[in-house]
Amino acid sequence: MPLVRIDIIQGRPEDEVTGIGHAVHRALVDCMNTPERDRFQVITEHAPNRLVYNPDYLDGARSDGIVVVQVFLAKGRTTEQKKAFYARVAELLSSEANVQPGDATIMLVENTREDWSFGDGVAQYLTLPQERWK
Amino acid sequence: MPLVRIDIIQGRPEDEVTGIGHAVHRALVDCMNTPERDRFQVITEHAPNRLVYNPDYLDGARSDGIVVVQVFLAKGRTTEQKKAFYARVAELLSSEANVQPGDATIMLVENTREDWSFGDGVAQYLTLPQERWK
Amino acid sequence: MPLVRIDIIQGRPEDEVTGIGHAVHRALVDCMNTPERDRFQVITEHAPNRLVYNPDYLDGARSDGIVVVQVFLAKGRTTEQKKAFYARVAELLSSEANVQPGDATIMLVENTREDWSFGDGVAQYLTLPQERWK
Repeated sequence: MPLVRIDIIQGRPEDEVTGIGHAVHRALVDCMNTPERDRFQVITEHAPNRLVYNPDYLDGARSDGIVVVQVFLAKGRTTEQKKAFYARVAELLSSEANVQPGDATIMLVENTREDWSFGDGVAQYLTLPQERWK
Repeated sequence: MPLVRIDIIQGRPEDEVTGIGHAVHRALVDCMNTPERDRFQVITEHAPNRLVYNPDYLDGARSDGIVVVQVFLAKGRTTEQKKAFYARVAELLSSEANVQPGDATIMLVENTREDWSFGDGVAQYLTLPQERWK
Repeated sequence: MPLVRIDIIQGRPEDEVTGIGHAVHRALVDCMNTPERDRFQVITEHAPNRLVYNPDYLDGARSDGIVVVQVFLAKGRTTEQKKAFYARVAELLSSEANVQPGDATIMLVENTREDWSFGDGVAQYLTLPQERWK
């Protein structure tokens, strides 16, 4: 169910861009009950002056290697799941995609089950049994 | 009021891209009480490996013709309206823009009336009579 | 905390694009309790037929100079703060970036404190004392 938008600055090697997408999805599967096949991501590369960030807000250590991850998903994850997700994203981005942990910037936006259609004009989460999508 | 983001893979003919925008707006007008003139859309074309999707999650049949429609709008639509909207989007995308129904991927994000300004620094939905915008 | 997406039509002079980003951030600082260093913006330029708008919905006077500002932030601002923010954005866009007030289009999407990680895999708003981020 999540729709994930990932914004980065252009110039990364292709395998790092691919690795970033994989890392974020793996963290969703590991920590947020996202099914393996439930992967929908929009990855956008920007000129440096079009992705504006503060390098040290909250004592962070950000660089042009910043990865902004925005996850749209239905309500239902606990605070503990979210915290585990953030940690896992930072860990996997570092190990799989050469992203410094300080550059892992993440935000969630929640909606509800009825706010999704995965094709054919149907609200699948209202009609399919939960074991099909959880 | 809706702000609509539409993400597709590059390479579609121009009339299909235009048709996609028209189809989504028509479905909002037909099913979600959106005024005809209330049209605000951002359409972005991506390289194939930057719009990542699973082809068969939930038994869907998705292709590189996938259209990801994200609608930001104020609360107030019923579940039935949303379901009618999904069906209408899939129908119109197919008839007007050569999009397979399985490729019509839709999600909604709701906020409130006070979260909108349509220019001049004013929150119009708080100040104008409702018949002006509903 | 806000993540700000700004969408414009391509062709503006660079100093206007820069000025747009500065103006929106200044308005957040002035009206929404956003810390000066809490600046995270994604600015995207589009071909004219990819940013679709109605020129006169709600009696507006919009042009290809339209600026669509989408602010993702945690709940907690009052209606009065939001109204002041809209007015300040329109004022500063006009004075600093040559944007007509009718072209200042703004929407907010709210989430919660636990929905943010600013690096290192940590949900800073749950762990840091509030005076550090408010």
